[in-house]
Amino acid sequence: MGSRAVVLGASGFAGAEVLRFLSSHPGIDVVAAGAASRVGIPLADFYPSMPSYAGMVFSSFDDALGLEPDIVFSSLPHTHSMELFGDYQAKVVDLAGDFRLKDAAAYPVWYGEAHRHPQALDDWTYGLTEIHRNEIRDCSKVANPGCYAAAALLALAPIAEAALIEPSSIHIDAKSGVSGAGRAGGEGFDFVSANENSRPYSVTGHKHIAEIEQELTYLAGSQITVSFIPHLVPMNRGILATCIAQLRQPLSSTDLEDLYHTRYGQEHFITVLGHSSLPETKRVSGSNFAEIAARIDDRTSRVIAMCAIDNLGKGAAGQAIQNANLMLGLPENTALDVAGMVT
Amino acid sequence: MGSRAVVLGASGFAGAEVLRFLSSHPGIDVVAAGAASRVGIPLADFYPSMPSYAGMVFSSFDDALGLEPDIVFSSLPHTHSMELFGDYQAKVVDLAGDFRLKDAAAYPVWYGEAHRHPQALDDWTYGLTEIHRNEIRDCSKVANPGCYAAAALLALAPIAEAALIEPSSIHIDAKSGVSGAGRAGGEGFDFVSANENSRPYSVTGHKHIAEIEQELTYLAGSQITVSFIPHLVPMNRGILATCIAQLRQPLSSTDLEDLYHTRYGQEHFITVLGHSSLPETKRVSGSNFAEIAARIDDRTSRVIAMCAIDNLGKGAAGQAIQNANLMLGLPENTALDVAGMVT
Amino acid sequence: MGSRAVVLGASGFAGAEVLRFLSSHPGIDVVAAGAASRVGIPLADFYPSMPSYAGMVFSSFDDALGLEPDIVFSSLPHTHSMELFGDYQAKVVDLAGDFRLKDAAAYPVWYGEAHRHPQALDDWTYGLTEIHRNEIRDCSKVANPGCYAAAALLALAPIAEAALIEPSSIHIDAKSGVSGAGRAGGEGFDFVSANENSRPYSVTGHKHIAEIEQELTYLAGSQITVSFIPHLVPMNRGILATCIAQLRQPLSSTDLEDLYHTRYGQEHFITVLGHSSLPETKRVSGSNFAEIAARIDDRTSRVIAMCAIDNLGKGAAGQAIQNANLMLGLPENTALDVAGMVT
Amino acid sequence: MGSRAVVLGASGFAGAEVLRFLSSHPGIDVVAAGAASRVGIPLADFYPSMPSYAGMVFSSFDDALGLEPDIVFSSLPHTHSMELFGDYQAKVVDLAGDFRLKDAAAYPVWYGEAHRHPQALDDWTYGLTEIHRNEIRDCSKVANPGCYAAAALLALAPIAEAALIEPSSIHIDAKSGVSGAGRAGGEGFDFVSANENSRPYSVTGHKHIAEIEQELTYLAGSQITVSFIPHLVPMNRGILATCIAQLRQPLSSTDLEDLYHTRYGQEHFITVLGHSSLPETKRVSGSNFAEIAARIDDRTSRVIAMCAIDNLGKGAAGQAIQNANLMLGLPENTALDVAGMVT
Repeated sequence: MGSRAVVLGASGFAGAEVLRFLSSHPGIDVVAAGAASRVGIPLADFYPSMPSYAGMVFSSFDDALGLEPDIVFSSLPHTHSMELFGDYQAKVVDLAGDFRLKDAAAYPVWYGEAHRHPQALDDWTYGLTEIHRNEIRDCSKVANPGCYAAAALLALAPIAEAALIEPSSIHIDAKSGVSGAGRAGGEGFDFVSANENSRPYSVTGHKHIAEIEQELTYLAGSQITVSFIPHLVPMNRGILATCIAQLRQPLSSTDLEDLYHTRYGQEHFITVLGHSSLPETKRVSGSNFAEIAARIDDRTSRVIAMCAIDNLGKGAAGQAIQNANLMLGLPENTALDVAGMVT
Repeated sequence: MGSRAVVLGASGFAGAEVLRFLSSHPGIDVVAAGAASRVGIPLADFYPSMPSYAGMVFSSFDDALGLEPDIVFSSLPHTHSMELFGDYQAKVVDLAGDFRLKDAAAYPVWYGEAHRHPQALDDWTYGLTEIHRNEIRDCSKVANPGCYAAAALLALAPIAEAALIEPSSIHIDAKSGVSGAGRAGGEGFDFVSANENSRPYSVTGHKHIAEIEQELTYLAGSQITVSFIPHLVPMNRGILATCIAQLRQPLSSTDLEDLYHTRYGQEHFITVLGHSSLPETKRVSGSNFAEIAARIDDRTSRVIAMCAIDNLGKGAAGQAIQNANLMLGLPENTALDVAGMVT
Repeated sequence: MGSRAVVLGASGFAGAEVLRFLSSHPGIDVVAAGAASRVGIPLADFYPSMPSYAGMVFSSFDDALGLEPDIVFSSLPHTHSMELFGDYQAKVVDLAGDFRLKDAAAYPVWYGEAHRHPQALDDWTYGLTEIHRNEIRDCSKVANPGCYAAAALLALAPIAEAALIEPSSIHIDAKSGVSGAGRAGGEGFDFVSANENSRPYSVTGHKHIAEIEQELTYLAGSQITVSFIPHLVPMNRGILATCIAQLRQPLSSTDLEDLYHTRYGQEHFITVLGHSSLPETKRVSGSNFAEIAARIDDRTSRVIAMCAIDNLGKGAAGQAIQNANLMLGLPENTALDVAGMVT
Repeated sequence: MGSRAVVLGASGFAGAEVLRFLSSHPGIDVVAAGAASRVGIPLADFYPSMPSYAGMVFSSFDDALGLEPDIVFSSLPHTHSMELFGDYQAKVVDLAGDFRLKDAAAYPVWYGEAHRHPQALDDWTYGLTEIHRNEIRDCSKVANPGCYAAAALLALAPIAEAALIEPSSIHIDAKSGVSGAGRAGGEGFDFVSANENSRPYSVTGHKHIAEIEQELTYLAGSQITVSFIPHLVPMNRGILATCIAQLRQPLSSTDLEDLYHTRYGQEHFITVLGHSSLPETKRVSGSNFAEIAARIDDRTSRVIAMCAIDNLGKGAAGQAIQNANLMLGLPENTALDVAGMVT
C-alpha cells in the first residue's frame, strides 16, 4: 500500500501534471482530487487521457482533506494555502507562493497583502531539492519553488555559493511557455494572440524576484539583488533562464565548467552540458530534468549561466513529487525517470 | 533481470521514442542502440534528456545483433528489415513496412520493388494488438502497423467487422504531425515551411492504403477498398483519422455507440468517447492511448468514425512495446501507463 | 476622394483584417470603426500595428451608420445584420450568415431561428465573386460567404458545373486555423489547449453546409447534398478544404486539369496548381488568393478537389473588399495584390 | 515608369520578402530575380503566392546585373557582395554583413577573414534610417543592418545619444523567430526540433555585436561595449530585443518616456508604446513597423529598453525598401504602409 495523497487544484495545469506523474507512481495513491469549481464531475470527462483515475470524481477541498491523507499536493491561487495549511498537521507540498518567503514583511511588498499566518512560516522549507535536500527530508511542509525561480536558482547557485560575481550585477532574462500562465490565462493567452508572438511582461517587480533573492542571498551569505524580466514565447511548456552577471575577478571557462560539474555531479535530475551544447527546453519537456550550461564572456568579463526546465516538471509538479518522495522516505526519483522529449 | 533488447534505428524519431519508453521499463533492458550513421557516438551527446543511457554509445547493426538479444526493435528505412530478418531466429518487432503485407505480389505495387524474402512473410503477424492479440502472443515476428493505418483501423474495425457499410464507400482523411516524416524530413519540413501551414500529400496511392485494405478485408470477410488522403499539420506529434462511409442500412447513433463500447470495452489503451466529446490528438500525445468516437450523419446516411493517436505512441513505439510485452509474457501495459498530455 | 466606408465589428478578427486591407486602399476611406464593447477607446490602443487609424476611436453602431457611409462592412454575430440592414438603403457587405441563404425556411433549420426580415432576402447576392460576379457588380447588398463555404465552393465549382460527379457523393473534410473561431473563442481555444492539438468538431450539421449545398445546387442545376467535417488545426490562419466525390463516368487527370484551368484561367485570385504541386495554406496567408488542385483517384473512381485560402482573406475580409471593389466600380484587385506568405 | 530593380538572392527568405514588398510598389519595377541555384526556373513554380512575377524565371547574377538596373537589392551569403559590389557604380542596398563595419580591421575579428575591398568601405552607409537618414538619401551604397542589430539599436539609440547609462553596462537579450536562420537552416531547424523549443546560441561573440557597438559608440560619442545573447523561439518571424543597462544617475520613468517620444515622435515606422503596453512581435509581423517601450527598474537603477520588429521587415526587406525609397527620391513609406498582423 502506498501513501495516501490528495491533490488540490486538480483541474489546473500544475494539478493535472501532478496527477499525470502520480498515475504511474508505485508508492503514492491518489485518494481524492479537489477542484472547487468542478465538484462531482468525473475525472474521466475532464481527463480522458488519464484512464487510471476513471472511477474518481472531483471533490471539494473539505471532502478531500477529510480523508486524512498522508500528504497533500496543493496548487491553488495565492492565499488559499495560507488559510488551509496555516495550522494543518499532515505533510503538504504547496505549489503556490504562500509559504515561500521566510520574511513575513516581504509578503505585503511582493504579494500586495500581509501574510495571514506569519507564525507558520518557520514550519515551511523552500523546496528546491538541490539546495535544501536535508531539510526537505526532515520536514512536513514544503513550499515548492516558483517556476522561474527554480530555473534561475539552478543556473546561478554554483556561482552564488562560490562568491564569484558582483552581488548586485545579476540580470535574469527568462522565456516561458504559455502554460506558465495557468488554465485561466484570459485575454492575450488565446491561441491566436499567443501564437507567432513573443512578448515581455512584468518587467520590473515580478513576484519570483523575492524568492530568487532570498535563496541567492542564503547561498552567497551576503545580500544579492537581481533584475528579472520574464517573457512569453509560443510553446506550451518550458522555461529557459538566461542569467548574466559581472565577474569579481577573471575566471577561465574551464574552471567555471569544473565548478558546475562538481556542484551538480551527483544530482540525478541536473544535466550539466559540455562546451559544445547549450540548454534546450524541448529536451526536458514532460520530465523533471534540468539542463544547465555556463560560459565566460571574456569581452565583458561576465559569466553567463543558462538553465532549461519544464515549467510544469522541475518548475512545478515534478519538483513537488521529488520533494514528496524525500518526505515519504522513498527513492528521490520514484516515478520521475521519464525522459524528456526528443520530438 | 529483464529481457535483453536491441533497438535498431535508434537515432530516428521512432527509435528515440522506443528508447524513451524502455528507459522506465522494468522487464526489458536495452543492451545496444544501433544507428548506422552514428556508430561510436555516446547516446548522452545525442539524447541528453535520457540520462539512463548515459554509458552507452551507438552501435553498428552487426555489433548490436551480435549480442544475441531476446528481442529486437527495428525502425529502419524500407528493405533493411527484409535483409536483416528474412531468416533471423529471435523475436523481432519491426516498425517498418517490410513485412506488413501478407501478399508478396503487393510489394511491387505499393513499395515499388519485389519482396526479397517472400517465403518469410508467413512468419510475421500484423501487429495491431486490438485485432491480432492472440497471434502476437504466440509469434516471434511482429510487423508493427504504419501510423496512419493504426489510426484508421482502430476507427473502422468495429463497423468493418459488423458489415455495416458499403464495402467500396470508405474514405479516410488523416492529419499528421510533422514527426511522421521522420528526422530526415528535408525540404518543406524545416520549421518555417511547415509552421503555420497545412497541406495534403500523396493524395492517391499512399503505401498505408495496402495494409488498411488488407486488414479491413480480413475483418469484414470480403473485399474492402478505400481512398485515403494524408495531410501534414503544424504540430510535432499526433494523427487524427476522420473516416466516412456509406451505411448499408439505417443505424441509430445509440446502436453505433454501443457497438464501439462493446468492441473496445476491455481494451486498456482504447478510450471510446461518449456523445459529448470528440477525439483530440493532444490528449494522447506521449502515450500509447487512442481516443475514438463514432457518429451517424442522418442527412447523408453516412457513418463517421474518428481516431486520435500519437503517431510515435500507438502509431509506432508504444504499439511496438505493447506487442513486445505480449511476446515476452509480460503484462500488456508494462511501461505504457504514462498518461497523455493535458498541456 | 475615396468612397466613405464604415466597418462594424471592428474589434473582431475579420473586422481587424478588413481594417488592415483598407489601411492601404486608395479608393476607400474608413470614416468610422464600430465596436459595441469598446466605444470611445482609441484604435491606437487596440491596434498599435495600424498607425493609419491613429486618430480614430471605436464608435457605436448608430454613430457609425449615422455618418451615412457609401458602404458598410459588417462583421457582427448572427442576427445583428438582420436587424441593422433589413431595410437599409446604402451598400453593405455583410460577413455574417444573416443573408446568405435564399430560402427563408432554411434559417430555422440551420441557424435555429426564423429570419427576422425574410422579405429582404431577395435583395442580397451571395458574394463569392467567382460564381456571382455580375450580380455583385450590380447590387447593393452582398452576403459574403462563410470561410469554409468559400474554400469548398472554389474547389468544387468546376466539377459541379460540369456535372461530372454523383450528386449525393460529395464529402468535404476541412482544416481551419484557430482564428476561424473568432476572438471570443473561449474554452478549448486558449493557446495551451489548441497548440499541438488537432480535433474535429460539428461533424454533422455545421451551418456552412446550407450555403455549400445552395450554391452547388445552383451550379449543378440539380440537388446536391454533401457531408462536411470541419477540424481545428494549430495555426492562426488558413483553411484547407479536401473534397472527394464519386465520378459519374471515367475521366482522365489531364481532362480534369484542363477543366480547372479553363474555368479559372481568367480569375485573378485563383491559382490552379499544376500536376506537381498541391495547395498549402501558408502560401495564401495574409492574401486574397486561393490555391486549387484536382486529381483523379483511379482505384476508387473518385475525384479529389483541394483548395487553400486564408480564412480571413478570401474566406472573409479579402473577399469582402473584392466585392466592394466591384460594387464601387473599382478595379477588382484594388488593395488586394499583397502576396501570400513565403515565411 | 518606375525605377528598374534587380533582386539577388531571390530564393532566400529575405529575398522573397523583398519581392513580396515590391510586388505592390508603384515606383519600383523588378526586372530580374537572381538565384544562383535556380537559374531558369519560373518564379511561379517557387512562389505560387506571388502571381505578379508569373512571367519571370530566376536569373544568374551576371544576367541580372547585365540589365543595368537603377538599384540592386542583394541578399547573398557573406563575401558575395564584397566581390560583386566592390567597385560597382549603380545604387545597391546590401542585406548582408559585407559592408556594415567601417573599420576594415574588424572583419577578421568578427567575420573570420579580411575584407576583400577595404578601400570601398567608405562608400557605404549603415542603413538604419532612423540614425542615418540624411546620408542614406545622398548615397548610392547602403549596408542594411543585421536583424538583431536593427532591433537593439532602435531600442538603445535614445539612451545612448543622451549618455544616460554606464557605457560598459549594456546587455542585450534577443529572441528571434526561426526565419532568421535563413532557408538553409539545417540540423536543429527542422520543424520537429525547433517547435516547442527555445534555446540560446552564439552566447559570446555573435557577429551583430560589432555593428551594434559601432553604432552605439557613434551615437554616444564614446566607446560602448555590450554583451549580446540571441535565442531561437518557435515562431516564423519576429525579433524581440530586451536590453538592460545601468543608469549613470537617477531618472524617472516619465522623463525616460518623454525622451523616447521626443526622439521617435516624427518617425513613421516607430511606435513608442505608452506605460500600459509592451512590445509584441506579432503586431509588427509582415510589416516595416517597430514597437518600442522603455522602463526604469528602481530597485536596481537599471533602464530596460525593448523593441519588437519583424526580422524580415524592419530587420531586413522592409528596411531595405525604406532605404531604397530614400535613395530614389520617393516617399519613405512607399509600399510600406501594410499594417502588422492582428491574427
